[in-house]
Amino acid sequence: MADDPATEILDATYRALCEHGYANLTLQDIATEADTSKGSIHYHYDSKDQLFVAFLDELYERFTDRVNSHDGDTPREQLEALLQVLLTTDADSSLRAFRTAMLELTAQAPYNSTLQERLTDFDEFLIEQLREILASGVDTGEFDDNINPVHDAEYLATTITGAHTRHVAINHSSDQLYDTMTRYIERQLLADEQAEVAQ
Amino acid sequence: MADDPATEILDATYRALCEHGYANLTLQDIATEADTSKGSIHYHYDSKDQLFVAFLDELYERFTDRVNSHDGDTPREQLEALLQVLLTTDADSSLRAFRTAMLELTAQAPYNSTLQERLTDFDEFLIEQLREILASGVDTGEFDDNINPVHDAEYLATTITGAHTRHVAINHSSDQLYDTMTRYIERQLLADEQAEVAQ
Repeated sequence: MADDPATEILDATYRALCEHGYANLTLQDIATEADTSKGSIHYHYDSKDQLFVAFLDELYERFTDRVNSHDGDTPREQLEALLQVLLTTDADSSLRAFRTAMLELTAQAPYNSTLQERLTDFDEFLIEQLREILASGVDTGEFDDNINPVHDAEYLATTITGAHTRHVAINHSSDQLYDTMTRYIERQLLADEQAEVAQ
Repeated sequence: MADDPATEILDATYRALCEHGYANLTLQDIATEADTSKGSIHYHYDSKDQLFVAFLDELYERFTDRVNSHDGDTPREQLEALLQVLLTTDADSSLRAFRTAMLELTAQAPYNSTLQERLTDFDEFLIEQLREILASGVDTGEFDDNINPVHDAEYLATTITGAHTRHVAINHSSDQLYDTMTRYIERQLLADEQAEVAQ
Protein backbone atom coordinates (compact mmCIF):
# COMPACT_ATOMS: atom_id res chain seq x y z
CA MET A 1 0.00 0.00 0.00
CA ALA A 2 1.98 2.96 1.28
CA ASP A 3 5.50 3.52 -0.03
CA ASP A 4 6.84 5.92 2.54
CA PRO A 5 6.15 6.89 6.17
CA ALA A 6 4.46 10.21 5.28
CA THR A 7 1.98 8.42 3.00
CA GLU A 8 1.45 5.66 5.56
CA ILE A 9 0.49 8.36 8.09
CA LEU A 10 -2.10 9.74 5.64
CA ASP A 11 -3.52 6.24 5.10
CA ALA A 12 -3.70 5.82 8.87
CA THR A 13 -5.45 9.21 9.11
CA TYR A 14 -8.18 7.90 6.80
CA ARG A 15 -8.71 4.80 8.96
CA ALA A 16 -8.56 6.78 12.22
CA LEU A 17 -11.13 9.29 10.87
CA CYS A 18 -13.52 6.45 10.03
CA GLU A 19 -13.08 5.00 13.49
CA HIS A 20 -13.05 8.11 15.73
CA GLY A 21 -14.62 10.92 13.68
CA TYR A 22 -12.91 14.27 13.25
CA ALA A 23 -13.79 16.26 16.37
CA ASN A 24 -12.25 13.87 18.89
CA LEU A 25 -9.39 12.63 16.74
CA THR A 26 -5.95 12.96 18.33
CA LEU A 27 -2.49 12.57 16.85
CA GLN A 28 -2.13 9.61 19.24
CA ASP A 29 -5.10 7.87 17.55
CA ILE A 30 -3.40 8.32 14.19
CA ALA A 31 -0.03 7.16 15.56
CA THR A 32 -1.69 4.03 16.99
CA GLU A 33 -3.39 3.35 13.66
CA ALA A 34 -0.07 3.85 11.80
CA ASP A 35 1.75 1.67 14.33
CA THR A 36 4.20 4.49 14.96
CA SER A 37 4.82 7.19 17.57
CA LYS A 38 3.43 10.71 17.95
CA GLY A 39 7.03 11.89 17.61
CA SER A 40 7.29 10.26 14.21
CA ILE A 41 4.12 12.05 13.06
CA HIS A 42 5.49 15.37 14.32
CA TYR A 43 8.66 14.70 12.32
CA HIS A 44 6.55 14.76 9.13
CA TYR A 45 3.76 17.18 10.11
CA ASP A 46 4.11 20.12 12.48
CA SER A 47 0.53 20.11 13.75
CA LYS A 48 -2.83 18.37 13.42
CA ASP A 49 -3.91 21.24 11.15
CA GLN A 50 -0.92 20.74 8.86
CA LEU A 51 -1.50 16.99 8.77
CA PHE A 52 -5.11 17.57 7.74
CA VAL A 53 -4.15 19.93 4.95
CA ALA A 54 -1.75 17.26 3.61
CA PHE A 55 -4.50 14.67 4.06
CA LEU A 56 -7.01 16.75 2.08
CA ASP A 57 -4.43 17.36 -0.65
CA GLU A 58 -3.84 13.61 -0.92
CA LEU A 59 -7.59 13.00 -0.93
CA TYR A 60 -8.00 15.60 -3.67
CA GLU A 61 -5.41 13.77 -5.81
CA ARG A 62 -7.28 10.48 -5.36
CA PHE A 63 -10.65 12.14 -5.99
CA THR A 64 -9.49 13.78 -9.22
CA ASP A 65 -7.92 10.48 -10.39
CA ARG A 66 -11.14 8.61 -9.63
CA VAL A 67 -13.35 11.19 -11.32
CA ASN A 68 -11.03 11.53 -14.34
CA SER A 69 -10.99 7.79 -14.90
CA HIS A 70 -14.75 7.59 -15.49
CA ASP A 71 -15.48 5.50 -18.53
CA GLY A 72 -17.83 6.27 -21.35
CA ASP A 73 -17.48 6.95 -25.05
CA THR A 74 -20.09 9.69 -25.24
CA PRO A 75 -20.75 12.62 -22.88
CA ARG A 76 -23.96 10.98 -21.75
CA GLU A 77 -22.16 7.74 -20.87
CA GLN A 78 -19.45 9.75 -19.11
CA LEU A 79 -22.06 11.61 -17.06
CA GLU A 80 -23.82 8.42 -16.04
CA ALA A 81 -20.50 6.76 -15.12
CA LEU A 82 -19.56 9.78 -13.00
CA LEU A 83 -22.89 9.77 -11.16
CA GLN A 84 -22.51 6.05 -10.61
CA VAL A 85 -19.09 6.54 -9.00
CA LEU A 86 -20.39 9.35 -6.79
CA LEU A 87 -23.79 7.98 -5.83
CA THR A 88 -23.99 4.21 -5.85
CA THR A 89 -21.32 3.22 -3.37
CA ASP A 90 -23.45 3.72 -0.26
CA ALA A 91 -23.55 0.05 0.62
CA ASP A 92 -19.94 0.37 1.75
CA SER A 93 -20.41 1.13 5.44
CA SER A 94 -16.86 2.45 5.90
CA LEU A 95 -17.77 5.10 3.32
CA ARG A 96 -20.55 6.39 5.56
CA ALA A 97 -18.09 6.62 8.45
CA PHE A 98 -15.71 8.57 6.23
CA ARG A 99 -18.45 10.89 4.93
CA THR A 100 -19.49 11.49 8.53
CA ALA A 101 -15.96 12.61 9.43
CA MET A 102 -15.82 14.77 6.30
CA LEU A 103 -19.10 16.42 7.29
CA GLU A 104 -17.67 17.23 10.74
CA LEU A 105 -14.66 18.69 8.98
CA THR A 106 -16.93 20.64 6.59
CA ALA A 107 -18.68 22.20 9.57
CA GLN A 108 -15.25 23.56 10.63
CA ALA A 109 -14.70 25.33 7.31
CA PRO A 110 -16.22 28.66 8.41
CA TYR A 111 -13.57 28.85 11.15
CA ASN A 112 -10.61 27.67 9.07
CA SER A 113 -9.82 29.38 5.78
CA THR A 114 -7.20 26.78 4.73
CA LEU A 115 -9.79 24.04 5.13
CA GLN A 116 -12.37 26.10 3.26
CA GLU A 117 -9.94 26.62 0.36
CA ARG A 118 -9.48 22.84 0.08
CA LEU A 119 -13.21 22.17 0.16
CA THR A 120 -13.68 24.85 -2.49
CA ASP A 121 -11.13 23.02 -4.67
CA PHE A 122 -13.18 19.81 -4.45
CA ASP A 123 -16.38 21.68 -5.24
CA GLU A 124 -14.91 23.56 -8.19
CA PHE A 125 -13.23 20.46 -9.62
CA LEU A 126 -16.48 18.50 -9.60
CA ILE A 127 -18.45 21.35 -11.16
CA GLU A 128 -15.78 21.81 -13.83
CA GLN A 129 -15.85 18.09 -14.71
CA LEU A 130 -19.63 18.18 -15.00
CA ARG A 131 -19.52 21.41 -17.00
CA GLU A 132 -17.02 19.94 -19.49
CA ILE A 133 -19.13 16.82 -19.99
CA LEU A 134 -22.30 18.88 -20.47
CA ALA A 135 -20.61 21.35 -22.83
CA SER A 136 -19.11 18.60 -24.96
CA GLY A 137 -22.51 16.88 -25.10
CA VAL A 138 -24.05 20.11 -26.37
CA ASP A 139 -21.26 20.35 -28.97
CA THR A 140 -21.85 16.82 -30.24
CA GLY A 141 -25.62 17.34 -30.29
CA GLU A 142 -26.24 14.63 -27.69
CA PHE A 143 -27.44 17.19 -25.13
CA ASP A 144 -30.10 19.82 -25.72
CA ASP A 145 -28.48 23.08 -26.78
CA ASN A 146 -30.87 24.98 -24.50
CA ILE A 147 -29.07 23.73 -21.41
CA ASN A 148 -26.65 25.99 -19.62
CA PRO A 149 -23.59 23.83 -18.81
CA VAL A 150 -22.41 26.18 -16.02
CA HIS A 151 -25.73 26.33 -14.21
CA ASP A 152 -26.70 22.70 -14.77
CA ALA A 153 -23.27 21.53 -13.58
CA GLU A 154 -23.76 23.47 -10.36
CA TYR A 155 -27.23 22.01 -9.97
CA LEU A 156 -25.96 18.44 -10.36
CA ALA A 157 -23.01 19.05 -8.00
CA THR A 158 -25.36 20.50 -5.37
CA THR A 159 -27.61 17.45 -5.58
CA ILE A 160 -24.60 15.11 -5.22
CA THR A 161 -23.48 17.06 -2.13
CA GLY A 162 -26.99 16.76 -0.72
CA ALA A 163 -27.02 13.00 -1.34
CA HIS A 164 -23.82 12.64 0.68
CA THR A 165 -25.20 14.78 3.54
CA ARG A 166 -28.43 12.77 3.65
CA HIS A 167 -26.42 9.54 3.60
CA VAL A 168 -24.83 10.66 6.88
CA ALA A 169 -27.89 12.34 8.43
CA ILE A 170 -30.51 9.68 7.85
CA ASN A 171 -28.48 6.78 6.42
CA HIS A 172 -30.42 7.09 3.21
CA SER A 173 -29.30 5.10 0.22
CA SER A 174 -28.75 7.14 -2.95
CA ASP A 175 -29.77 4.30 -5.27
CA GLN A 176 -33.23 5.69 -5.94
CA LEU A 177 -31.76 9.15 -6.33
CA TYR A 178 -29.34 7.79 -8.92
CA ASP A 179 -32.31 6.46 -10.88
CA THR A 180 -34.11 9.80 -10.59
CA MET A 181 -31.03 11.69 -11.75
CA THR A 182 -30.59 9.34 -14.68
CA ARG A 183 -34.20 10.07 -15.65
CA TYR A 184 -33.53 13.78 -15.17
CA ILE A 185 -30.63 13.55 -17.61
CA GLU A 186 -32.81 11.77 -20.13
CA ARG A 187 -35.66 14.25 -19.91
CA GLN A 188 -33.91 17.51 -19.14
CA LEU A 189 -30.50 17.31 -20.75
CA LEU A 190 -30.73 15.04 -23.77
CA ALA A 191 -31.59 16.57 -27.10
CA ASP A 192 -35.18 15.76 -28.08
CA GLU A 193 -34.44 13.04 -30.60
CA GLN A 194 -32.10 11.33 -28.09
CA ALA A 195 -34.71 11.53 -25.35
CA GLU A 196 -37.27 9.80 -27.57
CA VAL A 197 -34.87 6.92 -28.14
CA ALA A 198 -34.36 6.65 -24.36
CA GLN A 199 -38.07 6.35 -23.61
CA MET B 1 -40.27 36.81 22.93
CA ALA B 2 -40.22 33.79 25.19
CA ASP B 3 -43.18 33.18 27.47
CA ASP B 4 -41.64 30.76 29.92
CA PRO B 5 -38.19 29.77 31.21
CA ALA B 6 -38.06 26.47 29.25
CA THR B 7 -38.73 28.29 25.98
CA GLU B 8 -36.26 31.03 26.88
CA ILE B 9 -33.60 28.32 27.35
CA LEU B 10 -34.34 26.98 23.85
CA ASP B 11 -34.06 30.50 22.38
CA ALA B 12 -30.74 30.89 24.19
CA THR B 13 -29.64 27.50 22.79
CA TYR B 14 -30.18 28.84 19.27
CA ARG B 15 -28.06 31.92 19.96
CA ALA B 16 -25.36 29.91 21.77
CA LEU B 17 -25.17 27.44 18.86
CA CYS B 18 -24.65 30.30 16.39
CA GLU B 19 -21.91 31.71 18.59
CA HIS B 20 -20.04 28.59 19.75
CA GLY B 21 -20.98 25.80 17.33
CA TYR B 22 -22.26 22.45 18.55
CA ALA B 23 -19.13 20.42 19.40
CA ASN B 24 -17.78 22.79 22.05
CA LEU B 25 -21.09 24.04 23.38
CA THR B 26 -21.53 23.68 27.14
CA LEU B 27 -24.60 24.07 29.32
CA GLN B 28 -22.73 26.99 30.91
CA ASP B 29 -22.61 28.76 27.49
CA ILE B 30 -26.36 28.33 27.19
CA ALA B 31 -26.93 29.47 30.79
CA THR B 32 -24.85 32.61 30.14
CA GLU B 33 -26.81 33.32 26.96
CA ALA B 34 -30.11 32.81 28.82
CA ASP B 35 -28.91 34.96 31.72
CA THR B 36 -29.64 32.14 34.12
CA SER B 37 -27.76 29.41 35.99
CA LYS B 38 -26.73 25.90 34.96
CA GLY B 39 -28.88 24.69 37.85
CA SER B 40 -31.92 26.35 36.32
CA ILE B 41 -31.25 24.59 33.00
CA HIS B 42 -30.91 21.25 34.81
CA TYR B 43 -34.26 21.94 36.47
CA HIS B 44 -35.89 21.90 33.02
CA TYR B 45 -33.60 19.48 31.13
CA ASP B 46 -31.77 16.50 32.64
CA SER B 47 -28.84 16.55 30.25
CA LYS B 48 -27.35 18.31 27.23
CA ASP B 49 -28.74 15.47 25.09
CA GLN B 50 -32.25 15.95 26.46
CA LEU B 51 -32.02 19.70 25.93
CA PHE B 52 -31.03 19.14 22.31
CA VAL B 53 -33.90 16.80 21.67
CA ALA B 54 -36.29 19.46 23.04
CA PHE B 55 -34.47 22.06 20.95
CA LEU B 56 -34.86 20.01 17.76
CA ASP B 57 -38.54 19.40 18.54
CA GLU B 58 -39.08 23.15 18.93
CA LEU B 59 -37.13 23.78 15.72
CA TYR B 60 -39.28 21.21 13.95
CA GLU B 61 -42.43 23.04 15.07
CA ARG B 62 -41.08 26.32 13.72
CA PHE B 63 -39.87 24.70 10.51
CA THR B 64 -43.23 23.08 9.80
CA ASP B 65 -45.03 26.36 10.56
CA ARG B 66 -42.72 28.24 8.22
CA VAL B 67 -43.02 25.69 5.43
CA ASN B 68 -46.80 25.36 5.85
CA SER B 69 -47.29 29.10 5.64
CA HIS B 70 -45.84 29.35 2.12
CA ASP B 71 -48.03 31.45 -0.09
CA GLY B 72 -49.18 30.72 -3.58
CA ASP B 73 -52.53 30.09 -5.22
CA THR B 74 -51.34 27.37 -7.58
CA PRO B 75 -49.00 24.41 -6.93
CA ARG B 76 -46.34 26.05 -9.08
CA GLU B 77 -46.52 29.27 -7.05
CA GLN B 78 -46.44 27.24 -3.84
CA LEU B 79 -43.36 25.37 -5.01
CA GLU B 80 -41.56 28.57 -5.95
CA ALA B 81 -42.48 30.19 -2.63
CA LEU B 82 -41.19 27.15 -0.75
CA LEU B 83 -37.88 27.16 -2.63
CA GLN B 84 -37.59 30.87 -1.99
CA VAL B 85 -38.01 30.35 1.76
CA LEU B 86 -35.45 27.53 1.79
CA LEU B 87 -32.85 28.93 -0.60
CA THR B 88 -32.75 32.70 -0.74
CA THR B 89 -32.04 33.67 2.83
CA ASP B 90 -28.27 33.15 2.61
CA ALA B 91 -27.46 36.82 3.00
CA ASP B 92 -28.34 36.48 6.68
CA SER B 93 -24.95 35.67 8.20
CA SER B 94 -26.40 34.32 11.44
CA LEU B 95 -28.15 31.70 9.31
CA ARG B 96 -24.79 30.40 8.08
CA ALA B 97 -23.62 30.13 11.69
CA PHE B 98 -26.75 28.21 12.55
CA ARG B 99 -26.45 25.90 9.51
CA THR B 100 -22.84 25.26 10.50
CA ALA B 101 -23.91 24.12 13.96
CA MET B 102 -26.67 21.99 12.43
CA LEU B 103 -24.12 20.33 10.14
CA GLU B 104 -21.93 19.50 13.14
CA LEU B 105 -24.99 18.05 14.79
CA THR B 106 -25.88 16.13 11.59
CA ALA B 107 -22.43 14.54 11.65
CA GLN B 108 -23.31 13.17 15.11
CA ALA B 109 -26.45 11.42 13.83
CA PRO B 110 -24.71 8.09 13.08
CA TYR B 111 -23.76 7.87 16.78
CA ASN B 112 -27.07 9.05 18.24
CA SER B 113 -30.30 7.37 17.18
CA THR B 114 -32.54 9.95 18.89
CA LEU B 115 -30.84 12.70 16.91
CA GLN B 116 -31.12 10.68 13.72
CA GLU B 117 -34.86 10.15 14.29
CA ARG B 118 -35.32 13.93 14.57
CA LEU B 119 -33.31 14.63 11.43
CA THR B 120 -35.33 11.96 9.63
CA ASP B 121 -38.52 13.80 10.69
CA PHE B 122 -37.26 17.02 9.09
CA ASP B 123 -36.27 15.19 5.91
CA GLU B 124 -39.56 13.31 5.63
CA PHE B 125 -41.63 16.41 6.33
CA LEU B 126 -39.92 18.39 3.58
CA ILE B 127 -40.24 15.56 1.06
CA GLU B 128 -43.90 15.11 1.95
CA GLN B 129 -44.61 18.84 1.46
CA LEU B 130 -42.89 18.77 -1.92
CA ARG B 131 -44.67 15.57 -2.91
CA GLU B 132 -48.08 17.04 -2.04
CA ILE B 133 -47.40 20.18 -4.08
CA LEU B 134 -46.18 18.13 -7.06
CA ALA B 135 -49.08 15.68 -6.87
CA SER B 136 -51.65 18.45 -6.66
CA GLY B 137 -50.00 20.17 -9.64
CA VAL B 138 -50.33 16.96 -11.64
CA ASP B 139 -54.01 16.74 -10.61
CA THR B 140 -54.75 20.29 -11.74
CA GLY B 141 -52.84 19.79 -14.99
CA GLU B 142 -50.29 22.48 -14.14
CA PHE B 143 -47.48 19.90 -13.86
CA ASP B 144 -46.60 17.30 -16.45
CA ASP B 145 -48.36 14.03 -15.67
CA ASN B 146 -45.17 12.13 -16.54
CA ILE B 147 -43.46 13.34 -13.38
CA ASN B 148 -43.20 11.05 -10.40
CA PRO B 149 -44.10 13.18 -7.34
CA VAL B 150 -42.35 10.81 -4.91
CA HIS B 151 -39.06 10.67 -6.82
CA ASP B 152 -39.03 14.31 -7.89
CA ALA B 153 -39.79 15.44 -4.33
CA GLU B 154 -36.80 13.46 -3.09
CA TYR B 155 -34.65 14.96 -5.83
CA LEU B 156 -35.63 18.52 -4.92
CA ALA B 157 -35.15 17.87 -1.18
CA THR B 158 -31.69 16.41 -1.83
CA THR B 159 -30.69 19.48 -3.83
CA ILE B 160 -31.95 21.79 -1.06
CA THR B 161 -29.89 19.80 1.49
CA GLY B 162 -26.85 20.12 -0.77
CA ALA B 163 -27.35 23.88 -1.09
CA HIS B 164 -27.30 24.21 2.69
CA THR B 165 -24.14 22.07 2.99
CA ARG B 166 -22.35 24.08 0.29
CA HIS B 167 -23.44 27.29 2.01
CA VAL B 168 -21.47 26.14 5.06
CA ALA B 169 -18.56 24.45 3.25
CA ILE B 170 -17.68 27.14 0.73
CA ASN B 171 -19.92 30.04 1.74
CA HIS B 172 -21.68 29.77 -1.56
CA SER B 173 -24.81 31.80 -2.14
CA SER B 174 -27.79 29.77 -3.33
CA ASP B 175 -29.23 32.64 -5.38
CA GLN B 176 -28.01 31.27 -8.70
CA LEU B 177 -29.12 27.79 -7.68
CA TYR B 178 -32.59 29.17 -6.95
CA ASP B 179 -32.70 30.54 -10.49
CA THR B 180 -31.54 27.20 -11.91
CA MET B 181 -34.15 25.31 -9.89
CA THR B 182 -36.86 27.68 -11.03
CA ARG B 183 -35.82 27.00 -14.62
CA TYR B 184 -35.79 23.27 -13.84
CA ILE B 185 -39.37 23.51 -12.63
CA GLU B 186 -40.37 25.31 -15.78
CA ARG B 187 -38.72 22.85 -18.13
CA GLN B 188 -38.98 19.58 -16.26
CA LEU B 189 -42.14 19.77 -14.20
CA LEU B 190 -44.59 22.06 -15.92
CA ALA B 191 -47.00 20.56 -18.41
CA ASP B 192 -45.95 21.39 -21.97
CA GLU B 193 -48.50 24.11 -22.63
CA GLN B 194 -47.57 25.79 -19.30
CA ALA B 195 -43.85 25.57 -20.12
CA GLU B 196 -44.44 27.34 -23.42
CA VAL B 197 -46.19 30.19 -21.66
CA ALA B 198 -43.24 30.43 -19.24
CA GLN B 199 -40.70 30.82 -22.02
